Amino acid sequence: MTAERSKVVIVGAGFGGLTAAQSLAWAPVDVTIIDRHNYHYFQPLLYQVATAALSPADIAWPIRGILRRQTNATVLLANVTGIDADVRIIHAGTVTVPYDYLVLATGATHSYFGHPEWAPIAPGLKQIEDATAIRRKILLAFEHAELTDDYAEQRRLLTFVVVGGGPTGVEMAGAIAEVAHHALPSEFRRIDTHAARVILIEAGPRLLPTFPEDLSAYAHEALERMGVEVRTQARVTNCDQDGVSLEETRIEAGTVIWAAGVVASPAAEWLGVDHDRAGRVKVEPNLTVPGRPEIFVIGDTASAVDAAGRAAPGIAPAAKQMGRYVAHVIASRVENRTSPGPFRYRHQGDLATVGRKAAVVKLNSIHLTGFIGWLFWGIAHVYFLIGLRNRAVVAFSWLWNYLTYQRGARLIVDSPDNQKMARDEKVRPLPTSVEASRGPGRDQPRSDRVDWR
Amino acid sequence: MTAERSKVVIVGAGFGGLTAAQSLAWAPVDVTIIDRHNYHYFQPLLYQVATAALSPADIAWPIRGILRRQTNATVLLANVTGIDADVRIIHAGTVTVPYDYLVLATGATHSYFGHPEWAPIAPGLKQIEDATAIRRKILLAFEHAELTDDYAEQRRLLTFVVVGGGPTGVEMAGAIAEVAHHALPSEFRRIDTHAARVILIEAGPRLLPTFPEDLSAYAHEALERMGVEVRTQARVTNCDQDGVSLEETRIEAGTVIWAAGVVASPAAEWLGVDHDRAGRVKVEPNLTVPGRPEIFVIGDTASAVDAAGRAAPGIAPAAKQMGRYVAHVIASRVENRTSPGPFRYRHQGDLATVGRKAAVVKLNSIHLTGFIGWLFWGIAHVYFLIGLRNRAVVAFSWLWNYLTYQRGARLIVDSPDNQKMARDEKVRPLPTSVEASRGPGRDQPRSDRVDWR
Repeated sequence: MTAERSKVVIVGAGFGGLTAAQSLAWAPVDVTIIDRHNYHYFQPLLYQVATAALSPADIAWPIRGILRRQTNATVLLANVTGIDADVRIIHAGTVTVPYDYLVLATGATHSYFGHPEWAPIAPGLKQIEDATAIRRKILLAFEHAELTDDYAEQRRLLTFVVVGGGPTGVEMAGAIAEVAHHALPSEFRRIDTHAARVILIEAGPRLLPTFPEDLSAYAHEALERMGVEVRTQARVTNCDQDGVSLEETRIEAGTVIWAAGVVASPAAEWLGVDHDRAGRVKVEPNLTVPGRPEIFVIGDTASAVDAAGRAAPGIAPAAKQMGRYVAHVIASRVENRTSPGPFRYRHQGDLATVGRKAAVVKLNSIHLTGFIGWLFWGIAHVYFLIGLRNRAVVAFSWLWNYLTYQRGARLIVDSPDNQKMARDEKVRPLPTSVEASRGPGRDQPRSDRVDWR
Repeated sequence: MTAERSKVVIVGAGFGGLTAAQSLAWAPVDVTIIDRHNYHYFQPLLYQVATAALSPADIAWPIRGILRRQTNATVLLANVTGIDADVRIIHAGTVTVPYDYLVLATGATHSYFGHPEWAPIAPGLKQIEDATAIRRKILLAFEHAELTDDYAEQRRLLTFVVVGGGPTGVEMAGAIAEVAHHALPSEFRRIDTHAARVILIEAGPRLLPTFPEDLSAYAHEALERMGVEVRTQARVTNCDQDGVSLEETRIEAGTVIWAAGVVASPAAEWLGVDHDRAGRVKVEPNLTVPGRPEIFVIGDTASAVDAAGRAAPGIAPAAKQMGRYVAHVIASRVENRTSPGPFRYRHQGDLATVGRKAAVVKLNSIHLTGFIGWLFWGIAHVYFLIGLRNRAVVAFSWLWNYLTYQRGARLIVDSPDNQKMARDEKVRPLPTSVEASRGPGRDQPRSDRVDWR
């Protein structure tokens, strides 16, 4: 009986892979889930780590912890390097894992539209490491501006460019503006962080192109109210160490963040099968690879078109629906039940936050903006976080940020990575003689000073 | 009037430097505090970051945030490279900072007793980066053990050696034992983490040599009850990639952590003055450098002997007392008041935690152990954390850990640093064929499984 249990291997513990594993908890199969990280993370809140509102551990959970009570699941920390589909084996370095059913849920990464050399200059936001690297870059820009006496260099360091006007770009631009205009002003003595420029660049005619037009217009206005310069119909033609070039202008900037395009992970390459322009595997209506009914591809790695001809978008709910669907298909086959019909994507809505008390929400025919939208966004995100502990910590951090404007995770943690980034970004602290300066109102003793013993 | 304000420069924003800066809030001086990190951190809880109970941001605060309302204070993120004491200038790369009074509070780092080659093998625990690197190393040891089929290699990976039986060594050994024996067992399928060995090595005759003997004995017993092997009178003769050698034995170990010795930062070198064997500057009774009455050295960087002939120990309260004292001396001189007498250290007590419901506390003649000691330790540490937000988050995390045995910050975050460490530690996953294994009781569906949608 034991020998007969089918082996299901899932590669990737993002929203799709993890949901597939959990949906197989009751099936008579042995599940192995392989990821190159030991944690699952909540990608929609990654921008809050990048802008120092939350810590990595607030939005990430050890995969082992999530699955510890699911006794048919084994977790492996390994980097998949190839698939031998003919003999049904996964290679991960020196480790090999055989499978009867394979689910590939390896996600997507940034696309620089044929300019891979822009990657070190304009980091994107997909991984926890990306978020901490961007956090470091943003915070160091202010620190270096405080250190230099060169006004032009100070202006450059205090210019932040976000490329891409989708939800991630909108969220990043809004959050950087809040950091510069609310969290930091009282902390610097030589620069005025209010003077920081945040520029959001979108190639298309409007922000949030997948949202209804009224919500796009609201986001545009809300960002401008927050001091973000929004430039639509603007295309980046070059990124270099000193800034970005658009078709008709040049922006000198110390920090450039890429939120413009994604490309699927190399699952199509591993399998040697057809993919679309974004590298996604073109799957059958039941999410299997053509000619390989035992291999499923889900989430951002799949190019799935449902019965009605609609493509599933690259968002968390789509990945989770696909994960549940393939678990259902596998369980049916193992138990010799009738397989479910083709995968059908149910769109639940679109959410994006702009900043303090400003978010856009579309649920069927309901459009929410402003404080109500923001409240809905916050509750929905806390609700979807895994685990009571993280829900409580995130809710508490947000309440704290809201009440105090402070951001709790503002650490620049050094690492070789950081040193590398410092080289890459050509930090240029000019010869400077710094004299202790006098802050405003220094002669009026304040009774609310931090008195810490 | 403005031109006459004295410039006080403080190097290092640890307990000593930060206290000095804050104690000068009311003095008619301009304070510049320079640190190579943008944060102050609570070193006594660093071992909790290293063992995944807390996140770095829970025990660290941006220096700018702490001092933002102290308008006579300027914060600079810079790495001091030298001091020109004759012209009273600090060099930090290309930045120069003039001073009238200088306070050096640059702390200490690990000492490998003449074996710097052990440093990459046996990391110490002084910086936030050390803590995250050790966390990565400990968690990866379990992951790699789960991946290998070689029993000897598995045993090696599951052996953790802590060198040094002071408070840090005792805390680390206890915390690793808790991780292995309580947090992780239900999460691995191929290894039994209960089988992990934690070995604490102390060269002297007893643990916690600065504590009274009854408390040392209690700590020894409590650790053994938790499954830690304690070896006193044992001296490490060699550290290499595969483990450590003692005078009469060899221990194959995947993880070695150094908690044995400290050496002061190079302040004595910068100044070209006398130092003791641990590199600490020998200071006058008023904590100035001999022949340089405008330069003060405090905290772990100073070798201070008070009027009664007692040396101030390298702990946070001593550094804070010295910081307050030098602020007092500087303020007196600037205001032409009588200088205070020589520095006098007041010992307030000793605290060390062993693990869950076990800590040792000495306050004058009061000795506490067990649950009461542990409660006292927890309350004291939460009380000394800066800022309401962190107090609440840490208290909540501890309550959560206590109730669930889970640890919330168990992330292995990849970075070049990590890859370097992986090379250093010679990770050897042997050719392995992993098959999904069946956990215990897999056929009994459990109603308390994690059901996450």
